[in-house]
Amino acid sequence: MAPIRAQLVGATGYGGLGILELLLQHPHFQVSTLIARDDAGKRIDEVYPHLAGRCDLVVQSSDEVAVGEDCDVVIFATPDRVSQQYAQDLHSRGVRFIDYSGDFRFTSTADYGRYAARHPSISDATHGAADLLGQNAYGVSELNGEAIAHSKIVGNPGCFAVGIILGLAPLFADGLVEAGTVQVDGLTGSSGAGKKPAPLQHFSHLNDNVVPYRVLNHQHVVESEMTLGRLGQASGATVDFIPHLLGTTRGILNTMHLTANKTVTREGLLERYREFYAGQHFVRVLDSPPTLKGPLGSNYIDLSVFVAEGGRRVVVMSSIDNLMKGQSGSAMQNLNLMFGLPATAGLERGPLYP
Amino acid sequence: MAPIRAQLVGATGYGGLGILELLLQHPHFQVSTLIARDDAGKRIDEVYPHLAGRCDLVVQSSDEVAVGEDCDVVIFATPDRVSQQYAQDLHSRGVRFIDYSGDFRFTSTADYGRYAARHPSISDATHGAADLLGQNAYGVSELNGEAIAHSKIVGNPGCFAVGIILGLAPLFADGLVEAGTVQVDGLTGSSGAGKKPAPLQHFSHLNDNVVPYRVLNHQHVVESEMTLGRLGQASGATVDFIPHLLGTTRGILNTMHLTANKTVTREGLLERYREFYAGQHFVRVLDSPPTLKGPLGSNYIDLSVFVAEGGRRVVVMSSIDNLMKGQSGSAMQNLNLMFGLPATAGLERGPLYP
Amino acid sequence: MAPIRAQLVGATGYGGLGILELLLQHPHFQVSTLIARDDAGKRIDEVYPHLAGRCDLVVQSSDEVAVGEDCDVVIFATPDRVSQQYAQDLHSRGVRFIDYSGDFRFTSTADYGRYAARHPSISDATHGAADLLGQNAYGVSELNGEAIAHSKIVGNPGCFAVGIILGLAPLFADGLVEAGTVQVDGLTGSSGAGKKPAPLQHFSHLNDNVVPYRVLNHQHVVESEMTLGRLGQASGATVDFIPHLLGTTRGILNTMHLTANKTVTREGLLERYREFYAGQHFVRVLDSPPTLKGPLGSNYIDLSVFVAEGGRRVVVMSSIDNLMKGQSGSAMQNLNLMFGLPATAGLERGPLYP
Amino acid sequence: MAPIRAQLVGATGYGGLGILELLLQHPHFQVSTLIARDDAGKRIDEVYPHLAGRCDLVVQSSDEVAVGEDCDVVIFATPDRVSQQYAQDLHSRGVRFIDYSGDFRFTSTADYGRYAARHPSISDATHGAADLLGQNAYGVSELNGEAIAHSKIVGNPGCFAVGIILGLAPLFADGLVEAGTVQVDGLTGSSGAGKKPAPLQHFSHLNDNVVPYRVLNHQHVVESEMTLGRLGQASGATVDFIPHLLGTTRGILNTMHLTANKTVTREGLLERYREFYAGQHFVRVLDSPPTLKGPLGSNYIDLSVFVAEGGRRVVVMSSIDNLMKGQSGSAMQNLNLMFGLPATAGLERGPLYP
Repeated sequence: MAPIRAQLVGATGYGGLGILELLLQHPHFQVSTLIARDDAGKRIDEVYPHLAGRCDLVVQSSDEVAVGEDCDVVIFATPDRVSQQYAQDLHSRGVRFIDYSGDFRFTSTADYGRYAARHPSISDATHGAADLLGQNAYGVSELNGEAIAHSKIVGNPGCFAVGIILGLAPLFADGLVEAGTVQVDGLTGSSGAGKKPAPLQHFSHLNDNVVPYRVLNHQHVVESEMTLGRLGQASGATVDFIPHLLGTTRGILNTMHLTANKTVTREGLLERYREFYAGQHFVRVLDSPPTLKGPLGSNYIDLSVFVAEGGRRVVVMSSIDNLMKGQSGSAMQNLNLMFGLPATAGLERGPLYP
Repeated sequence: MAPIRAQLVGATGYGGLGILELLLQHPHFQVSTLIARDDAGKRIDEVYPHLAGRCDLVVQSSDEVAVGEDCDVVIFATPDRVSQQYAQDLHSRGVRFIDYSGDFRFTSTADYGRYAARHPSISDATHGAADLLGQNAYGVSELNGEAIAHSKIVGNPGCFAVGIILGLAPLFADGLVEAGTVQVDGLTGSSGAGKKPAPLQHFSHLNDNVVPYRVLNHQHVVESEMTLGRLGQASGATVDFIPHLLGTTRGILNTMHLTANKTVTREGLLERYREFYAGQHFVRVLDSPPTLKGPLGSNYIDLSVFVAEGGRRVVVMSSIDNLMKGQSGSAMQNLNLMFGLPATAGLERGPLYP
Repeated sequence: MAPIRAQLVGATGYGGLGILELLLQHPHFQVSTLIARDDAGKRIDEVYPHLAGRCDLVVQSSDEVAVGEDCDVVIFATPDRVSQQYAQDLHSRGVRFIDYSGDFRFTSTADYGRYAARHPSISDATHGAADLLGQNAYGVSELNGEAIAHSKIVGNPGCFAVGIILGLAPLFADGLVEAGTVQVDGLTGSSGAGKKPAPLQHFSHLNDNVVPYRVLNHQHVVESEMTLGRLGQASGATVDFIPHLLGTTRGILNTMHLTANKTVTREGLLERYREFYAGQHFVRVLDSPPTLKGPLGSNYIDLSVFVAEGGRRVVVMSSIDNLMKGQSGSAMQNLNLMFGLPATAGLERGPLYP
Repeated sequence: MAPIRAQLVGATGYGGLGILELLLQHPHFQVSTLIARDDAGKRIDEVYPHLAGRCDLVVQSSDEVAVGEDCDVVIFATPDRVSQQYAQDLHSRGVRFIDYSGDFRFTSTADYGRYAARHPSISDATHGAADLLGQNAYGVSELNGEAIAHSKIVGNPGCFAVGIILGLAPLFADGLVEAGTVQVDGLTGSSGAGKKPAPLQHFSHLNDNVVPYRVLNHQHVVESEMTLGRLGQASGATVDFIPHLLGTTRGILNTMHLTANKTVTREGLLERYREFYAGQHFVRVLDSPPTLKGPLGSNYIDLSVFVAEGGRRVVVMSSIDNLMKGQSGSAMQNLNLMFGLPATAGLERGPLYP
């Protein structure tokens, strides 16, 4: 089989780095070009010295090399509103792409509009490639595998959304969540904010700290509510979400509270979860509470469920590596699906512990 | 004024260390003796080298020196079921004491029994000094100041309970909490588990980790439910509590979810909180979310409140230093009240930042 | 005694914050005005929320309030080349000042020139107030107390230099260091780099990391070599210095290697160190190796000495809180000396442990 | 090719875990049995929940299964003095083995005796399999590859020794080190101390701390001095070594000082290092200083060299992941050599960053 050639746009951020490292060890993919605005002209192992001996490609600017040229797929590890600008051109040329931002997570302008209105850095909610919405797939691989496999455009999910959606999907699908309402406390490492220095990610501030932010107002709630609220027997979802920034680099642990609309048991729910995710290699349903480090460096999502006295109040916990299952790992899994490869190809790396 | 002489029992744990350091800088207290089983015979600055030049008292065993001798007050920084053994003797001799464990947090054997049943290391729920229950006071200074001032026995509150109770008291007192039910995600540093090495507190395991534990089953819930459920217009309380151990040393941040039984606004609640805690020096009601490091090293509790769209779903956050307001700081505050001193005496130290 | 009124310039950096907190709890000082370019117009407890309830002064720009107006002393917590601009004016008006940068650490233009040439951000080595050099004192309190007490201008020492100089002073003073040459590995927390976000202090990069930087090329070496090389029987000093940035917030631990020009013993050196620093409250000579957290949050410097087999190769270790003894604590100690107060006034706060 | 069957003794410590994870992803090795005293009877993914879905072998005690049975090679991830007990039996049966402790790092009883005398937990310096010394090889793969390939017994090197030896080998081999003497400050994460809780590795103590220990007295110095002192033109080595325990989990960064016996340049030394290690995949000679996280999770050793003004005083830095190149990675590399496989087999995993 000839290698699948992937072009990376936004190659020098943490998202670009993550997928680059996965592609370097993938049996079937090959990196064609690295494109980035910052650091163009430098070798990637100058930008990231830990890559010494592994990759010495030179980063190019999008002035030097055309997006979509000489490749089978483009990976946009870029902020919102970048891939929209290239989408029509790529689509018309038949080049598939996957995007890390919210640009192609929604399949209608109405849905996108709700997201854009919530996003702190999007002022204009008009989608730049509205014609293509509906042809894209939302990239939560375990729920949406078939659509992803048949789509030429995939919107990779938000990091918090992956943990919330996969953690609650069995309950929403079964129509078990009273009023469709959940309370979620999300704990996240700092790397989700990317590589750019900022006051909130300044070491002296964040070390040993916990900083709640965007309380009840985070944009990943939108895709979570839409996805959960439309599953199986669900009829809408409301997610009260409090993200907490931790003094750690990687990982997202979500603790989620809800009331069941009938009496449940812990054993019953665990069994239902295992059945729901049967055959999904990256979902691990655990007897003990998941820990932040459990999936560190790997593409796993660890889940567990607890039930309070009375059998109605339910607690679900999910843990992921925010840069893997929460970003590049999901992207790799989606790329595998898009190209007919096993979901696990290039993703065999286990967690790093201790 | 002659110095008040305090004897410390359990002087070499983190709890003993904390109150020792406060007493050393207090204008009116003096440390008479340090008692501890471990490290007896050593100078305290050999046990804790950071005390060099500050305190060179020798730690004594309780075989060498009698508990309650040559002092005005005894401070038990000991595990459950220790102070019970000395209580009758001290009481009969008129020696006041304060205890860090659950031994004197409850004023009836029935209440104590519920707590003991939940506690992982208490097998026999019979209280060792049941006659004295009712003469003791529960040491949440801001809610119970008068009782503490008039009591000879004070049960210092549990670290998680301080943050939960002070964070929710205004809402329970006003009878605002639907079904009296709250969901609490507690995030705690490792120092609450004390000085003794253990697998959960092993550095390689805990560093960069978050470990949920005793899910829905922590013993501090009992005193929280009893206290909140009996405030003002409250009629009972149910606290679903998930403690999460963080890879950090100090601090407890609780994020608490509840439904109000009528429509509320954020501004209204903040105003109510400020009024409720007027004159309480150590309670800070903030406009922004509290952070874990905000009160670090000080006796403050930082609070804030948020309201979700619709005006019914409420989020409260509280942050304390678990070894200060969550333990030794509260003890010092209670000792001040017991001896008629200003609540702030010896507690002027501000937070350490960054 | 009327309070001494201190004006802070550069009040909103970590250096300004440090001295502000010390002044707030000082029995004899009062803060008159806070001046800063950034954040002018904000209350200081908006800039630093952990100050809530402790200080609500509004930060002013130097356009609004004149440097040196309405105060007894000016504290410049500013970068290099700022205090030089105000020095002549303050001096002519008889206003004393202390400066955190290198501007007044040297007493001749020749010495300053060597420093300026090494400094990464000083392009023009001409001193802006050369006339005043010689009237200033270098603020290592323990070595230079008398000069500081009689000077109206004090140059507060560099954070690394404090630990190197006090750690090696007894050996250089006794002329014991072969060829006057030492090798120093310095380990520092991130807070010495200040409050401004930068790639090296970005949390995701620095967490769990150690990053050597400015290898053999740090500007604090200059004041270290000059001070040590001119002590007692010393005749010059060469300091090979490798700073290592750690993933921690506070503290500097220096491990220093040298060859003695005659045979020595560990016991003999420890005794000599204790004699040399007799009466110096903030110097603690320890039997065991100092740790980074030993002096955390306090003004102590912890020292110890070791001798390798053969009695000639010597290892000295020193540990300080870089923001206290390494910066604001030393400044407070110097201010006490300048105003005839005990060195310890306002500096009684012990280390925070654990 | 039939899989090579490896038996792990000491399978549940961090050392056992490390090699287990490497073997699980190795193309040619297979794990036959897991033996451990602790946790015998449990599934390995109960002991280490992050292994869920990756390995469910049951840990066995050495009462249940014989060491050396049903396998091609035994890996002892055990403390000193364990493999000595099994060595004669294994050797007589022709079963190869590799050992993590000091038991087979030395090829004479005299050398072993010097090591044992320095080791804190070895009271009897008599080797338990003295006859076999001389048939073993010391497992620094890059220096000793041929001997390792032909030996049936390999002593895996100490974690600090790997970084010191590979960092200094080119200089000692060329006879460049004046008096054969070097000063080394070693910075290490906590995981080298293993899985067992202890006061020094207690989270509340170690977090944000640096703790120098065994100053000038660490047992890894012995193998470092012996190896370096016998290289090429070297005539003996003296290593003054100060280990510093850091508040981080993984990594060892050594900063090493020496005087060259002739004038050298940085460029010349870097070139010599690159030539010396030509063809060695895991040695990376960098232009910039190595960082602790640079090789994290991988088998690389990162090196750089600096020269002070005057061209005689040299600084070398090396960085490794202490559990990989410092332990299990080196073991895997040695196993590859022992079985005629490429050194890199099963070790392709790159560093984890950020």
